[in-house]
Amino acid sequence: MTLNQLFSEVLGPAFDGTLPYPTTSVKIKKGQVLTDFGQVESNTYFLITGLVELSIRSYQTLKTIDFFFTGEFVCAYTSFLTQQPSDVRVTVLSDGEAEVIHYQDLQQAYRVSSVANFVGRIINEQAYLRKAQREKDFLTKTAEERYQELITRHPEYVAQIPVNKIARYLGIHPESLSRIRKKLNS
Amino acid sequence: MTLNQLFSEVLGPAFDGTLPYPTTSVKIKKGQVLTDFGQVESNTYFLITGLVELSIRSYQTLKTIDFFFTGEFVCAYTSFLTQQPSDVRVTVLSDGEAEVIHYQDLQQAYRVSSVANFVGRIINEQAYLRKAQREKDFLTKTAEERYQELITRHPEYVAQIPVNKIARYLGIHPESLSRIRKKLNS
Repeated sequence: MTLNQLFSEVLGPAFDGTLPYPTTSVKIKKGQVLTDFGQVESNTYFLITGLVELSIRSYQTLKTIDFFFTGEFVCAYTSFLTQQPSDVRVTVLSDGEAEVIHYQDLQQAYRVSSVANFVGRIINEQAYLRKAQREKDFLTKTAEERYQELITRHPEYVAQIPVNKIARYLGIHPESLSRIRKKLNS
Repeated sequence: MTLNQLFSEVLGPAFDGTLPYPTTSVKIKKGQVLTDFGQVESNTYFLITGLVELSIRSYQTLKTIDFFFTGEFVCAYTSFLTQQPSDVRVTVLSDGEAEVIHYQDLQQAYRVSSVANFVGRIINEQAYLRKAQREKDFLTKTAEERYQELITRHPEYVAQIPVNKIARYLGIHPESLSRIRKKLNS
């Protein structure tokens, strides 16, 4: 999915094909760190293809907060919004392509474009829903249930994610994940 | 704080004093359930005064997701956005007053008002930041650190919240919270 297609979906026939901000298309490479701890996020990335991980330092280890797939926005969004140093790291897990929007360009669009604010409002609603869902999942679902949801939503991608990162995302040991996988495959 | 004051703050001199949607002022009473499990959320509440709790069912118990204070929006927001039955309960913890916006009125404003989308975009950014911060706090801070932050941010309110609800919010037993309180007061 491209950003133009997203705007078409959200706005319908009202979309005239012109995005309210400039974008740059970039290739992203497996292992590439798009934003590291301590950097101020200056970009947001719309993933045309590829797979991206968001991680955080948690008591001497790294925890995976989330994975992002095609058709989704990803960046160190708290840092992007506050323009403070990031406490998350954004890492590419598989090669792909992204459309990049610069912070200043987006802010400028928000000052003058009602389309930018309309779509921005909806994208932020979705970002909220995603965070709220993950919080509820942690409070109400087992690691096995959350793993099943991940593979149901994104079967084509989960195979590309290293087991230790999935375990970090679920908040369990890799050995526990292996047991869950064996059980589900048997 | 009133909703008019919030709009003034966000829009500055550009705000002409007219909200883009109708609002109704209501008294809210301690113990009142504004939205219960299974209901579809049809309102969002802007708290002029008062204190509100959001809770969720978690393995036979209730967990407190968040507390909301004066000058903040509160509702079962996932249900409000998706118009699906709510998996959270919204309960008033202390008497106050709120301005109510109905779902249909807000959606109508979003269709025609650039001011509604501008302010809505910013409110959703803030809602995202709040959720993201709580997720990071859980991953990187101890219950004691999170308790200290709560009493630093809202000392005037924390005294009104029953100890068991604060414990539920922190994800610890009430006895552990008592130990933390004793330690901090000594």
